[in-house]
Amino acid sequence: DSQYSPGYYWLGNDTLKVPLVLHKENRERLVSRMLTNHKDTIEKNSFILLEGGKDEMSYDTDHEPLFKQERYFFWTFGCEIPGCYGLVGLDDKATSVLAIPKLPADYATWMGEIHSKEYYKSIFLVDHVIYTEDLQDYLKGNNASTLYTILGLNTDSGATFKEPEFPGMKENFKVNNSVLFPEIAECRVIKTPKEVEVIRYAVDASVSAHKHVMRTVKVGMKEYECESEFVHHAYKNWGCRNVGYTCICAANKNSAVLHYGHAGEPNASTISEHGFCLFDMGAEYHSYTADITCSFPATGKFSPEQRVIYNAVLDASVAVIQAMRPGVNWIDMHKLAERCILEALLKANILKGDLLDLVKNGIGSVFFPHGLGHFLGLNTHDVGGFVGDCKPKTNSLRTTRDLKANMVITVEPGCYFIKHLLTQALADPIKVQFFNQQELQKYVNIGGVRIEDDVLVTENGCENLSKDLPRTCEEIEEFMKKY
Amino acid sequence: DSQYSPGYYWLGNDTLKVPLVLHKENRERLVSRMLTNHKDTIEKNSFILLEGGKDEMSYDTDHEPLFKQERYFFWTFGCEIPGCYGLVGLDDKATSVLAIPKLPADYATWMGEIHSKEYYKSIFLVDHVIYTEDLQDYLKGNNASTLYTILGLNTDSGATFKEPEFPGMKENFKVNNSVLFPEIAECRVIKTPKEVEVIRYAVDASVSAHKHVMRTVKVGMKEYECESEFVHHAYKNWGCRNVGYTCICAANKNSAVLHYGHAGEPNASTISEHGFCLFDMGAEYHSYTADITCSFPATGKFSPEQRVIYNAVLDASVAVIQAMRPGVNWIDMHKLAERCILEALLKANILKGDLLDLVKNGIGSVFFPHGLGHFLGLNTHDVGGFVGDCKPKTNSLRTTRDLKANMVITVEPGCYFIKHLLTQALADPIKVQFFNQQELQKYVNIGGVRIEDDVLVTENGCENLSKDLPRTCEEIEEFMKKY
Ligand SMILES: [Mn+2]
Ligand SMILES: [Mn+2]
Repeated sequence: DSQYSPGYYWLGNDTLKVPLVLHKENRERLVSRMLTNHKDTIEKNSFILLEGGKDEMSYDTDHEPLFKQERYFFWTFGCEIPGCYGLVGLDDKATSVLAIPKLPADYATWMGEIHSKEYYKSIFLVDHVIYTEDLQDYLKGNNASTLYTILGLNTDSGATFKEPEFPGMKENFKVNNSVLFPEIAECRVIKTPKEVEVIRYAVDASVSAHKHVMRTVKVGMKEYECESEFVHHAYKNWGCRNVGYTCICAANKNSAVLHYGHAGEPNASTISEHGFCLFDMGAEYHSYTADITCSFPATGKFSPEQRVIYNAVLDASVAVIQAMRPGVNWIDMHKLAERCILEALLKANILKGDLLDLVKNGIGSVFFPHGLGHFLGLNTHDVGGFVGDCKPKTNSLRTTRDLKANMVITVEPGCYFIKHLLTQALADPIKVQFFNQQELQKYVNIGGVRIEDDVLVTENGCENLSKDLPRTCEEIEEFMKKY
Repeated sequence: DSQYSPGYYWLGNDTLKVPLVLHKENRERLVSRMLTNHKDTIEKNSFILLEGGKDEMSYDTDHEPLFKQERYFFWTFGCEIPGCYGLVGLDDKATSVLAIPKLPADYATWMGEIHSKEYYKSIFLVDHVIYTEDLQDYLKGNNASTLYTILGLNTDSGATFKEPEFPGMKENFKVNNSVLFPEIAECRVIKTPKEVEVIRYAVDASVSAHKHVMRTVKVGMKEYECESEFVHHAYKNWGCRNVGYTCICAANKNSAVLHYGHAGEPNASTISEHGFCLFDMGAEYHSYTADITCSFPATGKFSPEQRVIYNAVLDASVAVIQAMRPGVNWIDMHKLAERCILEALLKANILKGDLLDLVKNGIGSVFFPHGLGHFLGLNTHDVGGFVGDCKPKTNSLRTTRDLKANMVITVEPGCYFIKHLLTQALADPIKVQFFNQQELQKYVNIGGVRIEDDVLVTENGCENLSKDLPRTCEEIEEFMKKY
């Protein structure tokens, strides 16, 4: 009676029972891709080597933050245990080996039952389970030639991936750390039906929790009460212990702060009577995460100005989701969204002039300063945005690729009245000409609107996984009126 | 309308308004202690230098876990901002300088308003606020001689404290890293009335949340639902965003796993009909944490065996809290608790023989394998357990010191039926003689009981800060019957 049974991860009740063969399929398609793309250079008895995350303490204390597994390792093995390694043979058999730490006897006193290697073999559906201390011997016994590892720049985050290490590795084996990284990243970009089912569940949990918050929110509440409601709803009812990222519960003018909610701005404002809420929250299940933003007036009733801005963003969202299909380039989708927003601001008389001139002069990014969306999976900002057929990185976009079937990507146009960006624009002799400053004044205290959905690209178009949210002004007003 | 106003941290509603002069007092008593104990060696123009924590990403991703400030820095400045340094002049004025990072303009787009140095000066009640890039110049301008820093072994956790660094530090200043660490640790051990108020609030929040869980728990629920209820209650109603440590929601036999609840054992069992619950959870406010354990039967009705074990532990708790006062040594308190538990097990006929023989032969730690308690404050296992007048470390104790007024320490005796410890003991030709194995059999599936309170040592005795919990079997049965 735990989260694991042979071949499954499950938290009971109505939570999703995840077949761990999901990760066996991941291993197989990774090996198959490696063999297809590098068959001439991969020697006999080569292995993919991945190192999982280690338990770490906070500063010099013995406080152990809740362990979060390294995501490439998790994708390949589905295993939450700290201190592991994994091997996958680079041949037709794709032999999988999970190396787990040998635990001291008093682990049973402090941390829980010490399970056998056979137990873990049956849970994780790998070919062999060994102890990490036997990794070197296992590889030698199998005449291992080259170990393929991940190393180098993560082109999505800009951070560097730490090379795996174990005693004797460099002395005894050749290490190739140039080939694997882009191939495994590309595998992670394309989701299998089993992965989509887990993401769909995380999205369902998050949609349900967002609706719960919309039913609960009241003028005068603290923003963090909404965070608490979301997290509780997703955990208690859906088994989502973690959120994929820190909850952004931004009301009032805070809705113009894109990544509000961090320790420095901890969702601590009181939701005011004219406060517009921008709540960006996503729950995680079996480490796959949702990433969803709902924007709505705290009272449940849009003011005329709120309606104008909300509809500008909704137009963009609808246009993009309608246009998404394999082959479409993401930069074009971003531009489409930006045009929709600018058109609406022109129509509302906040901006003036010609649409193409506005675009050319960068007025779009004054109101919509972030990218349209990003891949979604085991990371909120999932990997692979800049591998394969990507175009050069342009300003804030998190991918520049053509869409392919079975990508999962967020669609999150936004329109914000950000003081320092407006001040900058109004101080620019060219840009200022496009603003109708009198009309603009009516909007400067609105904050911002973001509408973020999680979208699966299909063979012929796309499916909005978060489509059960009330999204039009009318739907939102109707939904919130009921409570 | 945020968590800060000049001189205060406050989350609104009924949450505690913390006067940040608390940290000014901390700075002053640290300086005064340093000057008293090291007046002959501290040169003119010496400063204490502390480096705060930095924002960090998870692995190679751009996922930023919620920032947790380094605790020595927080104790001294009360400031949650990542990337800071702090100085305190080692003279009568105890001049305080907070060095904050200079933020790029686009911080305002992504993270929130960029505040002035004056703003932070008024919030944190320091004498000066400077940018971190000006730290070297500030020190040179003030003819700084020696910088006193923390470095070396944290004798509580066994980890090593990372020395602060900034450009030009080693080249321009003498660094003394041997004197400060034990002095600041000792200051943290003795809580001021203002610190006690914050701890009291975190304890009140946790007591309230534990009671909420006891009202909510039902046979058939998942353990993690109780975790979710606790965390939500403490956050929504009391503003506690974080718990001090991962929630231990152990039901059934899991209650014999001391640190259950981590990522490998994620509170995922179903609470069974005869399940005994051991819930160890503590909420944090303004970074001060509670640490409280409630043990009770899921049904709200003790079985005869559960009652025996529960009362064994309660006897120990009552005896210790009755005996606690300044001057009492903690090892003696541990032994007292152990004797109470062994006596009860003798009386219940689980053990046989002479109490002193049981003690001498280590039967106590078969059932009670952890220490009686630990200091509590900004860390769950707070610092200073092994500085000052401590006796040598003995097995699992987290401090061996004499009690002093204004220490806050947990009292957490426990009695567990841990399979591998019992197997070990029964295989030992000496130890086995003390067991009545037939009687023992009735108990082996109970799991364990821990009763953990947070206790303030006073001038003449002590105050149990968590005394509002139902603690006797009768109180618990009465409390749970109502729901
Ligand atoms: Mn997003
Ligand atoms: Mn404790």
